Amino acid sequence: MSTTKKTIIVFSGDLDKVMAAFIIANGAAAMGDDVTMFFTFWGLNALRKPEKIKVKKSFLQGMFGKMMPRGADKLGISKMNFGGMGAAMMKIVMKQHNVTTLPQLIQTAKEQDIKMIACAMSMDVMGIKEEELIDGLEFAGVATYLAEADESNVNLFI
Amino acid sequence: MSTTKKTIIVFSGDLDKVMAAFIIANGAAAMGDDVTMFFTFWGLNALRKPEKIKVKKSFLQGMFGKMMPRGADKLGISKMNFGGMGAAMMKIVMKQHNVTTLPQLIQTAKEQDIKMIACAMSMDVMGIKEEELIDGLEFAGVATYLAEADESNVNLFI
Amino acid sequence: MSTTKKTIIVFSGDLDKVMAAFIIANGAAAMGDDVTMFFTFWGLNALRKPEKIKVKKSFLQGMFGKMMPRGADKLGISKMNFGGMGAAMMKIVMKQHNVTTLPQLIQTAKEQDIKMIACAMSMDVMGIKEEELIDGLEFAGVATYLAEADESNVNLFI
Repeated sequence: MSTTKKTIIVFSGDLDKVMAAFIIANGAAAMGDDVTMFFTFWGLNALRKPEKIKVKKSFLQGMFGKMMPRGADKLGISKMNFGGMGAAMMKIVMKQHNVTTLPQLIQTAKEQDIKMIACAMSMDVMGIKEEELIDGLEFAGVATYLAEADESNVNLFI
Repeated sequence: MSTTKKTIIVFSGDLDKVMAAFIIANGAAAMGDDVTMFFTFWGLNALRKPEKIKVKKSFLQGMFGKMMPRGADKLGISKMNFGGMGAAMMKIVMKQHNVTTLPQLIQTAKEQDIKMIACAMSMDVMGIKEEELIDGLEFAGVATYLAEADESNVNLFI
Repeated sequence: MSTTKKTIIVFSGDLDKVMAAFIIANGAAAMGDDVTMFFTFWGLNALRKPEKIKVKKSFLQGMFGKMMPRGADKLGISKMNFGGMGAAMMKIVMKQHNVTTLPQLIQTAKEQDIKMIACAMSMDVMGIKEEELIDGLEFAGVATYLAEADESNVNLFI
């Protein structure tokens, strides 16, 4: 029997792209596949806790931390965001059409035992600490991603 | 014999990225592969008919519809677009070098029996109706995409 | 024994995305995999030599050439670039955390015999000549990419 495992690298921190990643991941998990999501660079923003956590950062890391969106509810969209208005409009339309919100998609991913890995090197560079991210994550690097991808039949970079 | 089927998710609505998707898809089909393209979010704009079609939309959907480019000939490029000037320059240079235009690439894809699926959920959210899109499409969701991807040896997200 | 060959299409010319591509590619090569990187559209900018090379271009190609970043050291980042300030900040933070720079990543890729292919069609359109790109590249088209991808178990589009 051939594998049907899936991996998705979530590099983007745009609401629309992160939602697409979770919709594919949750769909695959619902069909019985093992799924691993590897969050790196801007994608980490989707996993930040909404509240400010007191951690030690360098000056530049502090600036990045302040400027980047804090959590799934704060992400902008990749086109026509207009300072957040586009994202807000998109969320309203999605709600009207009963589309699951990103926080709900993340919750479903956890419940379906999707493995969510935060890229340790990106966290180090951006000064994001484990306690600033939501619970239930693993922390690893590119070697772990590659080992998972080698066992998978669909590998996407989003 | 191993499969050589391919799938491409076309998430982007940028001219350069959509062209890349069709060039890969048409190349694979020319080599005898089955190819499925799954158009979602902004990627749907590449499939819109150029003319305005009278359909019922909510207020926000109407706004999205007006602001998003109507069809393959109206897409901008992902960098240095400058309100469309970049896309216009790119098209001129491509014409000078006999690069196939996007509308021609889409026509070739149809002639090569590439399966083009429009994401039903994205259409619903953005208020895009079947009659607003070009002919010859199928309409389905993530489960259909995943079933196709499971049978394929190359799966890209563009 | 199943293949563990990898291909990565580098479409983006953003520093953060190109770095991600090389980190994955170098990681895979370090684990013993054959890796092919296929540079197309904006991704070609990462391979430009930093100095101006005298070559014949059309007027529009000359404009593209002047406006696009010349080489791995000049790339901007995909978000919060602010006219290059974001990229500069990112490089400082990366240096503080001993992250390999992009020019070093490219050098490592060469040393690990990663096959780097520049897309001939994109070069033709953008007016980029072989002598403007770094040494050690191959020049080919989509058919070559597809042949490599057919032999690989992980194929990413970045």
